[in-house]
Amino acid sequence: MSNEAVFLEHLLENSAYRWKDLPVKAYTAAGTQSRGMTKQILFEGTDMLPTEIRYFESEPGGYSALEAHEHVHHVIIMRGSGHALLGDHVHPITTYDSIHIPSWTYHQFYAAADSYLGFLCMVHPQRDRPKRPDEEALKSLLSNPAVKDWIRY
Amino acid sequence: MSNEAVFLEHLLENSAYRWKDLPVKAYTAAGTQSRGMTKQILFEGTDMLPTEIRYFESEPGGYSALEAHEHVHHVIIMRGSGHALLGDHVHPITTYDSIHIPSWTYHQFYAAADSYLGFLCMVHPQRDRPKRPDEEALKSLLSNPAVKDWIRY
Repeated sequence: MSNEAVFLEHLLENSAYRWKDLPVKAYTAAGTQSRGMTKQILFEGTDMLPTEIRYFESEPGGYSALEAHEHVHHVIIMRGSGHALLGDHVHPITTYDSIHIPSWTYHQFYAAADSYLGFLCMVHPQRDRPKRPDEEALKSLLSNPAVKDWIRY
Repeated sequence: MSNEAVFLEHLLENSAYRWKDLPVKAYTAAGTQSRGMTKQILFEGTDMLPTEIRYFESEPGGYSALEAHEHVHHVIIMRGSGHALLGDHVHPITTYDSIHIPSWTYHQFYAAADSYLGFLCMVHPQRDRPKRPDEEALKSLLSNPAVKDWIRY
């Protein structure tokens, strides 16, 4: 990136949050299942500020992929409400909540049935690939009454 | 930071945005002038994710310090509206706008007279100290009709 100010004007289009001239990607985590989710990259990260800033948005009832990885996430909820799987529990989430997801913690975001869920997710530009739960990890998640009815895989 | 999930619940207190158990600091940039601004650090940054995530909030009519530095900022407006000085121009800003502030660019945020202005500001945890404009820089800013009536110093 050259040393120029970049200003992304916010737009609201058909109830979805968008930024001017910024492409909207259907969010498909490698090999994992998600629903109703889009991704927009607000900042790709540089040596001066090694963080990629992404905006994920789910339609009501949608969810992100169930995954874990070595790299950490910092998430800030921007709109709506829902729930988040964080390892061994599911937490209700609402606009402006701030969530740090540590290494190797299974996580998944669920929009409420009647609400969009939009969040910023900060991540290191260089990172390992997310992993879906293997058979053993899935068994462990499904044996936990606090999360078993939430997870989508 | 240990490898544990950190969940900061969002609170709305007397019209100001706060997070549970997170200290609120009066924002005073070194040697510079600001008004009506507070700062909350949502994430301090780690080797795994070298970005400090701060939430700044100004009362209606308030403003941040006028400064420039080598390090870059990435700002996302979270609430309200106002204006931002970005080098040689002043840009109207509103909720969800995304602004990249490059190196050595004088910047200052102004809340509208009738609106709070809250924004996230991402920055490298290791960074140089901000500089106020010296006499020459101030002369240059004041000779620019696009910014001269905005700047507070």
